[in-house]
Amino acid sequence: MTRCECTAKIMAAKQSKGLTFQNIATAIGRDPVWTAAALHGQGALDAAEAGKIAELLGLEPAVAALLQQRDSPDLPMPPTDPLIYRFYEIVLAYGPTLREVIREEFGDGIMSAIDFSMNVERVPNPKGDRVRVTMEGKFLSFTKW
Amino acid sequence: MTRCECTAKIMAAKQSKGLTFQNIATAIGRDPVWTAAALHGQGALDAAEAGKIAELLGLEPAVAALLQQRDSPDLPMPPTDPLIYRFYEIVLAYGPTLREVIREEFGDGIMSAIDFSMNVERVPNPKGDRVRVTMEGKFLSFTKW
Amino acid sequence: MTRCECTAKIMAAKQSKGLTFQNIATAIGRDPVWTAAALHGQGALDAAEAGKIAELLGLEPAVAALLQQRDSPDLPMPPTDPLIYRFYEIVLAYGPTLREVIREEFGDGIMSAIDFSMNVERVPNPKGDRVRVTMEGKFLSFTKW
Amino acid sequence: MTRCECTAKIMAAKQSKGLTFQNIATAIGRDPVWTAAALHGQGALDAAEAGKIAELLGLEPAVAALLQQRDSPDLPMPPTDPLIYRFYEIVLAYGPTLREVIREEFGDGIMSAIDFSMNVERVPNPKGDRVRVTMEGKFLSFTKW
Amino acid sequence: MTRCECTAKIMAAKQSKGLTFQNIATAIGRDPVWTAAALHGQGALDAAEAGKIAELLGLEPAVAALLQQRDSPDLPMPPTDPLIYRFYEIVLAYGPTLREVIREEFGDGIMSAIDFSMNVERVPNPKGDRVRVTMEGKFLSFTKW
Amino acid sequence: MTRCECTAKIMAAKQSKGLTFQNIATAIGRDPVWTAAALHGQGALDAAEAGKIAELLGLEPAVAALLQQRDSPDLPMPPTDPLIYRFYEIVLAYGPTLREVIREEFGDGIMSAIDFSMNVERVPNPKGDRVRVTMEGKFLSFTKW
Amino acid sequence: MTRCECTAKIMAAKQSKGLTFQNIATAIGRDPVWTAAALHGQGALDAAEAGKIAELLGLEPAVAALLQQRDSPDLPMPPTDPLIYRFYEIVLAYGPTLREVIREEFGDGIMSAIDFSMNVERVPNPKGDRVRVTMEGKFLSFTKW
Amino acid sequence: MTRCECTAKIMAAKQSKGLTFQNIATAIGRDPVWTAAALHGQGALDAAEAGKIAELLGLEPAVAALLQQRDSPDLPMPPTDPLIYRFYEIVLAYGPTLREVIREEFGDGIMSAIDFSMNVERVPNPKGDRVRVTMEGKFLSFTKW
Amino acid sequence: MTRCECTAKIMAAKQSKGLTFQNIATAIGRDPVWTAAALHGQGALDAAEAGKIAELLGLEPAVAALLQQRDSPDLPMPPTDPLIYRFYEIVLAYGPTLREVIREEFGDGIMSAIDFSMNVERVPNPKGDRVRVTMEGKFLSFTKW
Amino acid sequence: MTRCECTAKIMAAKQSKGLTFQNIATAIGRDPVWTAAALHGQGALDAAEAGKIAELLGLEPAVAALLQQRDSPDLPMPPTDPLIYRFYEIVLAYGPTLREVIREEFGDGIMSAIDFSMNVERVPNPKGDRVRVTMEGKFLSFTKW
Repeated sequence: MTRCECTAKIMAAKQSKGLTFQNIATAIGRDPVWTAAALHGQGALDAAEAGKIAELLGLEPAVAALLQQRDSPDLPMPPTDPLIYRFYEIVLAYGPTLREVIREEFGDGIMSAIDFSMNVERVPNPKGDRVRVTMEGKFLSFTKW
Repeated sequence: MTRCECTAKIMAAKQSKGLTFQNIATAIGRDPVWTAAALHGQGALDAAEAGKIAELLGLEPAVAALLQQRDSPDLPMPPTDPLIYRFYEIVLAYGPTLREVIREEFGDGIMSAIDFSMNVERVPNPKGDRVRVTMEGKFLSFTKW
Repeated sequence: MTRCECTAKIMAAKQSKGLTFQNIATAIGRDPVWTAAALHGQGALDAAEAGKIAELLGLEPAVAALLQQRDSPDLPMPPTDPLIYRFYEIVLAYGPTLREVIREEFGDGIMSAIDFSMNVERVPNPKGDRVRVTMEGKFLSFTKW
Repeated sequence: MTRCECTAKIMAAKQSKGLTFQNIATAIGRDPVWTAAALHGQGALDAAEAGKIAELLGLEPAVAALLQQRDSPDLPMPPTDPLIYRFYEIVLAYGPTLREVIREEFGDGIMSAIDFSMNVERVPNPKGDRVRVTMEGKFLSFTKW
Repeated sequence: MTRCECTAKIMAAKQSKGLTFQNIATAIGRDPVWTAAALHGQGALDAAEAGKIAELLGLEPAVAALLQQRDSPDLPMPPTDPLIYRFYEIVLAYGPTLREVIREEFGDGIMSAIDFSMNVERVPNPKGDRVRVTMEGKFLSFTKW
Repeated sequence: MTRCECTAKIMAAKQSKGLTFQNIATAIGRDPVWTAAALHGQGALDAAEAGKIAELLGLEPAVAALLQQRDSPDLPMPPTDPLIYRFYEIVLAYGPTLREVIREEFGDGIMSAIDFSMNVERVPNPKGDRVRVTMEGKFLSFTKW
Repeated sequence: MTRCECTAKIMAAKQSKGLTFQNIATAIGRDPVWTAAALHGQGALDAAEAGKIAELLGLEPAVAALLQQRDSPDLPMPPTDPLIYRFYEIVLAYGPTLREVIREEFGDGIMSAIDFSMNVERVPNPKGDRVRVTMEGKFLSFTKW
Repeated sequence: MTRCECTAKIMAAKQSKGLTFQNIATAIGRDPVWTAAALHGQGALDAAEAGKIAELLGLEPAVAALLQQRDSPDLPMPPTDPLIYRFYEIVLAYGPTLREVIREEFGDGIMSAIDFSMNVERVPNPKGDRVRVTMEGKFLSFTKW
Repeated sequence: MTRCECTAKIMAAKQSKGLTFQNIATAIGRDPVWTAAALHGQGALDAAEAGKIAELLGLEPAVAALLQQRDSPDLPMPPTDPLIYRFYEIVLAYGPTLREVIREEFGDGIMSAIDFSMNVERVPNPKGDRVRVTMEGKFLSFTKW
Repeated sequence: MTRCECTAKIMAAKQSKGLTFQNIATAIGRDPVWTAAALHGQGALDAAEAGKIAELLGLEPAVAALLQQRDSPDLPMPPTDPLIYRFYEIVLAYGPTLREVIREEFGDGIMSAIDFSMNVERVPNPKGDRVRVTMEGKFLSFTKW
């Protein structure tokens, strides 16, 4: 079973059992976005967490084993998926702006994508609800040595 | 004067006058991130806004003219800049997660990158301050016809 | 069964039963181009629609399940297929023209490819019939914030 | 003067004289989208047409000379411009659908992008006006020999 | 059976039966180069032609079915095959020359690759025989509208 | 003066003097397609030929010097020019066919693109004249050693 | 059996039987480098040669059949293999030098890679033995026509 | 003066003075291929050598300065130049063969492209003279540690 | 069994037996980083070493056979794995610095990646432990000939 | 003055004044590798440091201004420079090894390329001196949230 087949199996079980990411996250006491990322291979569960999820989804131990290991991302770039492309486009269009705004406030460094968390909310709006994605990462200064 | 030279001129004037994006944004009554984006060509100022900024920065009318026109993004992809790359990496690693989380909540559609706003904050933290970037876009459903 | 194998199965059943996209579209009360797109994974049928189509084509429930989920596009770019390449060439040659004509009429924004519909007609012509493709999408203004 | 500088000069003159593509098209008795394409190098004006446009815009004879010659398209692909990208995305997502729908109706061949015309309209809509782009090309059958 | 496996099966049967493209072409009353192209998926046989070829080669009905459908080209570009690369090199080196020579003679347009035929001959030569490839396509003028 | 500027100068002089490739070819006793190729840098004139052409076009000695040296091809691939793209598409679609047809007739080898000539003709046709391009190259067998 | 699996089978049999390329070459009366190339699909053995090799290696007739057919090269470029990359680097670094040196000596043309042979020798050296690769191809002049 | 302009200046002076690579190499007591490489930036002359060459070619001290510094290679890959492409094709086709032949003889390692030399000879042949290129590099074993 | 499946099998056995790279390295008397590289195909064990490792991990002889052969690297570039990307980024950002610093100290040449070793250490640090990677390769001078 | 021209100016001044990176680093009390990186734009000097370096090299204030700003890396990838390529090859070949070795020791995370330092040493060796490059970065764990 490849990691990709593992993800497909998890998503199918989630759908057939009518579970949400929130339901699964609650079972292990974690955030639903992080849980969704881990189910897609972008996070490493510990053995207890992985066991609970395999049990909740009714999946075999091999799934629990794979869930304990981060996978390398595997996505065509530029993304062909329209939803994901919009985030790529934001980086393409606003990347230099983000660099200058962050430099002005924090100095010479970056926002970590490792010491990092993200969440997604629905913002009700009479003209059409909005998606709000919040990304937060530690500021890291470039070392001078 | 290309748009790129225009941006360089603006950034140099901003630095030599000791202005922040907030100072410039205040002069035209807009958000500092949007203002920074527009100074980089990713937004179109109206004639009054462009005029005020040219005056504030002590730049010629040709700058004000260019500021009224959105430019096509021009960035090597994958980004070679370390700060911008981290955002690209977030899309690479968490793109499929974002798609599934947003689909679960909103159904079949995307977050708009056009009917969209973004802001950047400093989150104080004793282990090192954090960068928080909030992106918000209208949810758009795919039409069925 | 991958989505790609699913599409192949659908197209083979359509051909062996002598059905047109119009026939299939009529069965679910939708437009034939949208229906063709959904059969190729670029649209999400609801459960009732998917069930009717699986029945009409004499295909198993797994097909109906896959038809309820949009798939990420998967096409070599530039397209190697001559018919599809001609549309790519239109974007390559006339993209900047479309941008300037739409900007002049609508202002700073885009035509949505999500809140979007498309149709195809035959235009009889004594020198050889013509293909007419009409694309229509909501105009979206860039937010200023 | 490169073709690219020539286009920039034309667009600047058009803007400073407050002319629309329709105004320029009327002066030479052609369609405004075709006229816009020709001004961008994707069409060849005859000497009389080129002369009228140079006069209307107040530009030198070298511009009129360049307007008589089609230029090779020059656009980054995938397009970095958000408006043009949406058309690229339509080809990416709906290309295979267009091929199957056109084949079903016309048989084994393509829609010409040379014996071709295109127009752009505003479709008023209470939920937000829509952009309608109509593309029409001669159907060409593959020769069997 | 993929189209690629189908081609391999056809070529193996052709070889084991000691048939030439001319032999196969004669059976269906067509040109050998067109026949070779159709066997490689670059042409669509009608049902009668496909049936005759399947019979001649002793292959199953599934082959006859696939032969009635054009396939999208699938070749690494630049070609890694030395023979095919030489034709690619001719386009690379002489493409601009072909454009200017054809424009001078025919005006603003292209040679069609759809309303098109091609043949291959051996030209005896004491210094070594020569390959002659003749390509012929309808001239298509760009529409002005 | 780069080779590219040299070509532009030559083409402009050719047009302003109303000369055809045939006229220029006649002056040096060569074929018009070869002459056109050499003017584009894909062929090396000898000193006498180069001198005659510079004189005929009224251009300076530096042009004559450059005409004596072959230039490396410089064309975006895939070609963005619609006319040149059609030849690329022919290689993409019919490359494997050409390989098999030539192998059947000549054995294991290639058609030379160096010991090579090409010509272009107009073929009158009541349904629209046709472009005929003939390519001829020496067959070269792979050495076995 | 693909050509790639065929090569793997050949190399495994060669190793398990303790044969060298020289041993195999001797069996068919050819050069060891050419023999190695043919075993990798870059050369076409005749039926007698292929039969002898299949027998020597103890492999089935299907291997002998595949050995009679040249395969298209299939190598990632730039090469990821360190040994092969060094040859790529030689082309990258010394390509223009080779062109100028060969032009000075031979005039306007190329070294054939088809009417071509290559050999590999060990050159003993007290500071470490050296690899000597000799490539030899017929000089081909560009035709002027 | 860029290194590229420097090379152009050197080649022009070499041609106008009627010097061969051998003539220049003799002046500094080196091999003509190495000398040609150094003139193209792929080798570093010492101050005395650089001075002699600048004097011989009648060029300014800035040329002598640049000749003392190796330049990074700058060549489109795959090469568009037909002569250089043939060497690329040799690597593409025969790379895996070279790896296996060298491994069989020398073990696990590579041929150095740094501790390396190359020469070019004319091999007279009644059927057409041949180009012989000899490459020789130190064999380097992979370290085991 | 491909090399990739072989690596997966090795890593799974290592994990299920609770072995470290150091444990495995000790069994064959080598460095743990070199051992890890060899297990990933980037190094060639001798028969005795391979046998000991297969025994220690409880794996079949086919694994021992594959461990005796270096594999070509197979990694997407730029790396999609965040840990590996950081090393790629170091080359991207500091490559020119490394070249100039090494040239200043050693002259015109390179650091060998073949006569090369590497190690990894943990450097305790109160602000967070650090990873230290030491790379050491023989300096090789470019030959002048 | 672009950053690239600035670097060229700095390197020329360094050479003509006979200064080493160590000399320049001493003037500002920093490490020579970091100093070399900053001179290449991969580090930001403070105003005092930049001023001292401009004075030491005898360069104008504009250089001092540019030295205070980090530049985005700009290097062809894969690197065409042989020295830099060797480091790229190390990442290509040993990237997965580094990931597994670091994960085994540190857990799920990365080595920072920002909170990072590097140094270069000469290691004397009777068989030829060696280059030792030491990279050290803070280990960062992926956040679980």
